[in-house]
Amino acid sequence: MTESETTTMKLTLHRESGVPLYRQVAEQIRELIRGGALPPLSRLPTVRALASDLRLTRLTIQSAYAELQAQGLIEAVVGRGTFVAQRLPRSPVARIPLAQSTQQIARTPSPWLIQGVLAELVQLNERTDLISFAQAVPAPETYPLREFKRALAVIMDDPSSVSYGPIQGDPALREQLSRLLLDRGIAVSPDAVLITAGAQQAIAVTLQALTVPSDVVLVEEPTYPGVVELAVQRGQRVIGIPRNADGLYSEALVAACEAHRPRLLYTIPTFHNPTGTSMSAERRASLLRIAAAYDVLVVEDDVYGFLALDGPSPPPLRADEGSERILYITSFSKALLPGLRLGALVASPDHLPRLAGAKHNADLLCSPALQRALAEYLRRGTFATHIRSARALYRERRDVLLEALDRYLRECSWTHPGGGLSLWVTLPEAVAERDFFFEALEHGVGFARGQAFFPQAQSRGHLRLSFGALPPQQIAEGVRRLAAALDAQQRSRLDVAARATRESTPFV
Amino acid sequence: MTESETTTMKLTLHRESGVPLYRQVAEQIRELIRGGALPPLSRLPTVRALASDLRLTRLTIQSAYAELQAQGLIEAVVGRGTFVAQRLPRSPVARIPLAQSTQQIARTPSPWLIQGVLAELVQLNERTDLISFAQAVPAPETYPLREFKRALAVIMDDPSSVSYGPIQGDPALREQLSRLLLDRGIAVSPDAVLITAGAQQAIAVTLQALTVPSDVVLVEEPTYPGVVELAVQRGQRVIGIPRNADGLYSEALVAACEAHRPRLLYTIPTFHNPTGTSMSAERRASLLRIAAAYDVLVVEDDVYGFLALDGPSPPPLRADEGSERILYITSFSKALLPGLRLGALVASPDHLPRLAGAKHNADLLCSPALQRALAEYLRRGTFATHIRSARALYRERRDVLLEALDRYLRECSWTHPGGGLSLWVTLPEAVAERDFFFEALEHGVGFARGQAFFPQAQSRGHLRLSFGALPPQQIAEGVRRLAAALDAQQRSRLDVAARATRESTPFV
Repeated sequence: MTESETTTMKLTLHRESGVPLYRQVAEQIRELIRGGALPPLSRLPTVRALASDLRLTRLTIQSAYAELQAQGLIEAVVGRGTFVAQRLPRSPVARIPLAQSTQQIARTPSPWLIQGVLAELVQLNERTDLISFAQAVPAPETYPLREFKRALAVIMDDPSSVSYGPIQGDPALREQLSRLLLDRGIAVSPDAVLITAGAQQAIAVTLQALTVPSDVVLVEEPTYPGVVELAVQRGQRVIGIPRNADGLYSEALVAACEAHRPRLLYTIPTFHNPTGTSMSAERRASLLRIAAAYDVLVVEDDVYGFLALDGPSPPPLRADEGSERILYITSFSKALLPGLRLGALVASPDHLPRLAGAKHNADLLCSPALQRALAEYLRRGTFATHIRSARALYRERRDVLLEALDRYLRECSWTHPGGGLSLWVTLPEAVAERDFFFEALEHGVGFARGQAFFPQAQSRGHLRLSFGALPPQQIAEGVRRLAAALDAQQRSRLDVAARATRESTPFV
Repeated sequence: MTESETTTMKLTLHRESGVPLYRQVAEQIRELIRGGALPPLSRLPTVRALASDLRLTRLTIQSAYAELQAQGLIEAVVGRGTFVAQRLPRSPVARIPLAQSTQQIARTPSPWLIQGVLAELVQLNERTDLISFAQAVPAPETYPLREFKRALAVIMDDPSSVSYGPIQGDPALREQLSRLLLDRGIAVSPDAVLITAGAQQAIAVTLQALTVPSDVVLVEEPTYPGVVELAVQRGQRVIGIPRNADGLYSEALVAACEAHRPRLLYTIPTFHNPTGTSMSAERRASLLRIAAAYDVLVVEDDVYGFLALDGPSPPPLRADEGSERILYITSFSKALLPGLRLGALVASPDHLPRLAGAKHNADLLCSPALQRALAEYLRRGTFATHIRSARALYRERRDVLLEALDRYLRECSWTHPGGGLSLWVTLPEAVAERDFFFEALEHGVGFARGQAFFPQAQSRGHLRLSFGALPPQQIAEGVRRLAAALDAQQRSRLDVAARATRESTPFV
């Protein structure tokens, strides 16, 4: 084995060791930090400078930095550079411990748990040549800009639109929501609606108002990362309940209720994020029975409920008779305009005052201007037309994606989403998700890594592919690149194995 | 003593007992709740129905309900009615324990601490005949509606204005803020700015990201209630540092640092809320020295910084050399348009990633549409003109208020605000604040009760009078009504004392 050494920051690279170069860089910087040679807050060289010094690609250095960042050892500050973290996590460092060290987290200033995954995603934004399936965003060509501008112009004539307003939300918007929810089979008075800054704030407010740090929170596995993040920050234990294409397993839910006496279950029964599949009617009924029996608060996230791609959406849990205590969340971020930052929480009278209190503490109220403009837009009645054409667009894109997967990625398996903006791919067993993520980046394609959607570390690799904002040609080309990346990664793994066979000496 | 009894819900009123009728109603309902006759979640009669049954005014019943609500015994649900609380607070019930039972709060689902005071304020909104000094809002006639509409029309042509955007905030707005802050003597790069949903979210995000529940938080006494609320929700001890018209006392700050080893100090050095007075240059320097010596994070709330009414604003703490670790908060809610819900946090590179993480958890990001419209408005350069004319308007209103106080309320003392939208009145010693609040309501005038601005229960009564949104004639008339209410209350107290002298039997 020959060694080509490059030394900067005292780094020594073994180019033919079989250990990926980014790992070597990351490991050696980690040792410098742990050993004190790089003290907290010291500045690391720029990606460009270190890449040039070590004669490596910028992507390799970026990958090394991303790993160190995911481990909490370094922090990137936009426009400033990269620094050793002020407070180092305890050694030995685990990989992105999303919900793991709950107790420790509760006692230290909140680390930004998702930072590692986000830092990886940021790299995607910097690549203009990249086809990115990473973000579940609606297609900009669906945005009803002209109609919304007209609505804004109307409401801006009234000065009270830009002043303070009710904490619970603008009455006109709550009225419109109450009507709109009838389409989802939910009949509630406008008084039951709390306007929030998107679904994320609805979840944050619910956890703040109705749970305490010692509560156990149940989520589906996989699930929307925002909820795991919030619960862990609150010091709560997060337990994942496995699900398949028919929704979460009732037996596993019962077992978790028996074992953990959870306070709350967060679920996305309809067009689930990240899989796009919906819970069956049977499992929904069973979920409601179990939640009632164990007195578990159910939080139903229905942000994709309007985006059915085949026939009508299944009715939400909240539409069921006797389900009035369910906290129901909807949002306009996926079905209309993400930039409004408007969503809503439907709650029972015994929960609402506390929830409104938490909303008040969080940011007093949502912008009356945007709330009223949205109410005015909904009042004018073109939302139904908008949704119809958006669904048609997403249906086409989903079908192109499914076809391309079938053509290029036969080694993987994937879900068949009935709605929403994403589907979920399971990698072959031998493929490491994180390595594949960086391999795919090298091939010019990005996605959301599966690990981000689980409360616990996963051995099996997954990708969430969001198709909403990509034109069909790009979808097909993106999958082709994924296939090339998978191929490359599998070949390099075989190379290492072959070399091991050829070159290993006995292990004695 | 004659008794005229009225019985409904088994209530017995002693009309001439000297105990205010609303108190009697409240006390008897409290006993029915505590005794189990009114179980949790049972519905109380409407204000109108109970008032008619008992032949009392609606205001009396409203006051009784407000007291019960402040004690956590009942909950009002807008449009649904009033209910016995699902979880009753432990008996005996203390009065609005703002920061008192920290430990207990940390273990129970977050009660809405400010609910009592807010419930009282809501009553103000229902009264159209009322002159209300209660809310520190800017004057709607200052709103630059036309300019802002134009800015909105420009940015709405770009679909990315209504999509997702950077967590830290729109780059154009951060750029404009960086320029604007030069007027406050603060030179920072746009990278140091985190856009938030108003100052309230800036505070929430700071506490979330940089403190833990076991931390002690220092505030001025009095202070903005939002910060106390948040810290208590987080389970933190909140210690008040007394202040006078020159700002908080340095000796008291040192003593608190010695005794409590606080993590963070929240201060409003410039045009302080609720008093409108500013910290002297000497005390500012001393605060910075003390904070450095005891390693206390300083959070400087400068939301009124642009609203100087006499000459230029004092420079913020953050403008001082060596004060780069101060968390600096500004907002457009007081100086421009409250309904934008936009503010900003200036932070050092070692704090910013954590703060952005907390912002992401709270609501992902602020609306790019409003951020860009604000950036476009600021870019067009009319903010300076706007501020000049707003200042002139508020100066006139402040002067009218000071004159009216001098004419009608000689028994009280008050501050002379150099900026902002409010001043602070101290009631004569013998006057109970809460009783005066309801007495004033009867006289058609509202204000923010002093108790809301303290972390601990106060014996001395105060009012915050906000003059920004009231025309001069209403300000003068409002103070006249306050004087009449004060007069009435003092007379009724003398009546009770006189009757006690006449009618009491020996206490043996």
